[in-house]
Amino acid sequence: MKTPKVERLKINYKTLEEFQKFREYGLQELSMLEDLQSNIIENDSNSPFYGIYLDGQLIARISLYRIDAKYDRYFKPAQDYYELWKLEVLPQYREQDYGTALVNHAKSFGLPIKTNARCRSNDFWLKMGFQPVNYDPVRDRGENPFVWLPPGVQLQ
Amino acid sequence: MKTPKVERLKINYKTLEEFQKFREYGLQELSMLEDLQSNIIENDSNSPFYGIYLDGQLIARISLYRIDAKYDRYFKPAQDYYELWKLEVLPQYREQDYGTALVNHAKSFGLPIKTNARCRSNDFWLKMGFQPVNYDPVRDRGENPFVWLPPGVQLQ
Repeated sequence: MKTPKVERLKINYKTLEEFQKFREYGLQELSMLEDLQSNIIENDSNSPFYGIYLDGQLIARISLYRIDAKYDRYFKPAQDYYELWKLEVLPQYREQDYGTALVNHAKSFGLPIKTNARCRSNDFWLKMGFQPVNYDPVRDRGENPFVWLPPGVQLQ
Repeated sequence: MKTPKVERLKINYKTLEEFQKFREYGLQELSMLEDLQSNIIENDSNSPFYGIYLDGQLIARISLYRIDAKYDRYFKPAQDYYELWKLEVLPQYREQDYGTALVNHAKSFGLPIKTNARCRSNDFWLKMGFQPVNYDPVRDRGENPFVWLPPGVQLQ
């Protein structure tokens, strides 16, 4: 299999319709739809989502949200980092490394990444070179944070 | 069916062993185990978890974490509130209102509640009297926040 192409998703009605196929469709997606309908955002603006298309259909996606260094409570030195969420591959396309391709794309930006490893996905994140943090109840609030550290970056 | 009894869970090896049956077992639970092993917390301390036992087995649980008013970005007037997470009923006990009993217990404390409605659970939260917030990307970071407002409390 050749390496799948990861694209930054455009916000438009087609993308939002495709998002409905994903399990984690919620207020973020609805708010994008409302902003589009009321022209608060332009059709075809860049979204925080990246995805993989197969035969013209979106089959996998991820959201990457850049957090400003002043809010960083994970990394040393404190710096801008990406919060990664909504990594999801449609059921019939799983176990084919599409998730891996999306995470590698996130890593290619060179900033630290923090995610919330859900539903016992620890093994996947470890395989991707992520590590668990020391759980801090005030900071982590029930999350299961795993982080990826580029060279030269440490945990706080 | 009589109303199930909701109990505050004690932190001990038995509880932590039972937690392993739940899907969302992660760093929070592991950190409780480590704290217990190194005597940082005492056996039988109160945990942030509440649960329901059936025939001596833990079959449903919820975590309630009290957030100080100074961090409140959801409610008006700003006040202490509960962040609710890890609501989970073991598969064979679902559709029997155990989740409802846990959420009602959370509401009985009289403070506003915020949760992250995951995996298209919106209908459950609406039925429980929760409402979606207006999604704010900086505050909500990909979450799907639903809140419960006691009388006299509004959204910010």
